[in-house]
Amino acid sequence: MIPFNKPFIIGNELKYIEQAVLSGKISGDGLFTKKCHSFFEKKYGFQKVLLTTSCTDALEMAAILCDLKPGDEVIVPSYTFVSSANAFALRGAKIVFADSYEDNPNVDPQSIASLITTKTKVIVPVHYAGVACDMEAIMKLAGDHNLFVVEDAAQAIDSYYIFADGTRKALGSIGHFATFSFHETKNIIAGEGGMLVINDSSFNERAEIIREKGTNRSAFFRGEINKYGWVDIGSSFLPSEIISAFLYGQLEHLDEIQGKRISIWNRYLEGLKEIVSQGKVSSPIIPTYGDNNAHMFYIVCQSIEERNQLIAHLKNKDIHSVFHYLSLNKSEYFLKNNVEIDIPFSDKFTDRLLRLPFYFELSESDQNLIINEILQFYESK
Amino acid sequence: MIPFNKPFIIGNELKYIEQAVLSGKISGDGLFTKKCHSFFEKKYGFQKVLLTTSCTDALEMAAILCDLKPGDEVIVPSYTFVSSANAFALRGAKIVFADSYEDNPNVDPQSIASLITTKTKVIVPVHYAGVACDMEAIMKLAGDHNLFVVEDAAQAIDSYYIFADGTRKALGSIGHFATFSFHETKNIIAGEGGMLVINDSSFNERAEIIREKGTNRSAFFRGEINKYGWVDIGSSFLPSEIISAFLYGQLEHLDEIQGKRISIWNRYLEGLKEIVSQGKVSSPIIPTYGDNNAHMFYIVCQSIEERNQLIAHLKNKDIHSVFHYLSLNKSEYFLKNNVEIDIPFSDKFTDRLLRLPFYFELSESDQNLIINEILQFYESK
Repeated sequence: MIPFNKPFIIGNELKYIEQAVLSGKISGDGLFTKKCHSFFEKKYGFQKVLLTTSCTDALEMAAILCDLKPGDEVIVPSYTFVSSANAFALRGAKIVFADSYEDNPNVDPQSIASLITTKTKVIVPVHYAGVACDMEAIMKLAGDHNLFVVEDAAQAIDSYYIFADGTRKALGSIGHFATFSFHETKNIIAGEGGMLVINDSSFNERAEIIREKGTNRSAFFRGEINKYGWVDIGSSFLPSEIISAFLYGQLEHLDEIQGKRISIWNRYLEGLKEIVSQGKVSSPIIPTYGDNNAHMFYIVCQSIEERNQLIAHLKNKDIHSVFHYLSLNKSEYFLKNNVEIDIPFSDKFTDRLLRLPFYFELSESDQNLIINEILQFYESK
Repeated sequence: MIPFNKPFIIGNELKYIEQAVLSGKISGDGLFTKKCHSFFEKKYGFQKVLLTTSCTDALEMAAILCDLKPGDEVIVPSYTFVSSANAFALRGAKIVFADSYEDNPNVDPQSIASLITTKTKVIVPVHYAGVACDMEAIMKLAGDHNLFVVEDAAQAIDSYYIFADGTRKALGSIGHFATFSFHETKNIIAGEGGMLVINDSSFNERAEIIREKGTNRSAFFRGEINKYGWVDIGSSFLPSEIISAFLYGQLEHLDEIQGKRISIWNRYLEGLKEIVSQGKVSSPIIPTYGDNNAHMFYIVCQSIEERNQLIAHLKNKDIHSVFHYLSLNKSEYFLKNNVEIDIPFSDKFTDRLLRLPFYFELSESDQNLIINEILQFYESK
């Protein structure tokens, strides 16, 4: 059986957990959490990083920091994970769904532009498969209309945006806030885990308070105040040091992990190029302003029926491939309070996109097997 | 230096994390999460258990399940951790603070009774130091007024309530919901971690949905539905399997941990009995309906000045003792929207309660040192 995903230990993950226990602190914000914060801030130029228990929790922190009031509107792609929308729905915001490009699951800035009203407060671009959204166009819209931008960079660690002038900036360093995931399916993992990036320092203090259950405990531990108390709403967004220690063990091998993933990604592209050039399937689009962090390899089939046949064909050969999001504008929750509208390209990827097995320990021989089974499926098409 | 708290590894915590990785699943709800759920359900007669990333998150789940509307009132002790109140404030509820007993930090049912109005929806008894609140009185009030009871059992693992007829029931199995913590300061630890207990099975399905980001993914994985989607509000409340594996490693040694803690607790009581009988300090009250899970040993001093002198005296001898909660009704956050009122017994424990070092690996010689320093401090008083 070739699974869709497989977690891995690559270095000192377990040793660091033991070290954390011996250091006398495994609740949040210990030594390894601080090491992770520094690592990300230095490597990607993030103004401030705060680890969280999940990307969902980081999105919820961003939603609180945007200070949403009921009735405020938040523009989110329809083709995304539930949490990109739910975090803002929890604050009472009205979710407005934008469409993808025809040939790329990422949100189309023209669709965003058409949805902006006087009530719009936040845009949430989601860098699908770790590939950049058109951040220059989106930041321009945000600037023109005085909106917050929260980059949902769950899949986008170690990926970059290339500006028109050639400058490269890490995804997650461009919007006001960004959120990342370390779920076991991501490039760098901690089982469940995430982080919030804050690129505007005026939010640093409130972010620390919200993350510590609405208390000014962080300032207390730095000796800035002599007792701490309840000063704001918040939650327990900070992860156990056990999680941070595991994560730091992975971070020390980031380059090795990324090198391996890029070679897997390229092997899929090379192996499937024949059926792509024949127009039988589409491969991922990497725009000129985007980079490839090799988070995911997907193909887009001709129809939902064909895609489901391919899933069944591969399953029959013990290969686990999986479809992805279902258009959120058609979800039961959204339709409770909204009329059904048509968001065609989101529906296209809902129906036709298929993700192939992709993990650090995927062997070349297993990958060749997957490629050959796909080619065989398409021989008769 | 004798710290106030010290985390520990007692058995297979690290081995189980490795096993979880090798099993191919370290995101939430894997093998070890299920083992923890079964353990708690069997041992304590909880109808259903769901691990969470923290006790705070479990409280937030309970608040969502109580379906609070803005304006609903929730009665919470003033002498408790911020999250007992904040979780309900996040849902827009009005927090109403009740007082402790004069001689016991636990909430007094008479104080609760005096605060019930037609808008009251929930009572949150907090079992301070793992010692039972008067659950028969509280459940009677809840029954008479049709209220939910959420037991904040953060500190109360392996502690029992003894009914008038002699029946024993685990704390957390009596209210509609209960929440526990596995923070590093607790008896059983995972750094940060928690669980929600649901004692009314009509809430099981919605609880699973809320915990899985508002999706019906749990039913999908059980094969009850053929695709999952967004059906409700929710968050990512489930912990990484790395956390559950660590926790399960601890659970296998629960009896050993509890035995050790009870002997530490009894040694404090024995060692300090002279100054207690002289009326210089008070020791913890264990009511006839309550049990002692040896979560904490505290003393109550004569005044805040004396307590702070004792902290300084012990610190001077490299012993780290700490005070505890600050009355929440006097917090900056609460006073933004409420007038200041007097809650005298909560203030008493805010000012005069002192927690002594307490952890699994505390040695007898270190403990004797602590006891002797306290006796010496009180010799001249």
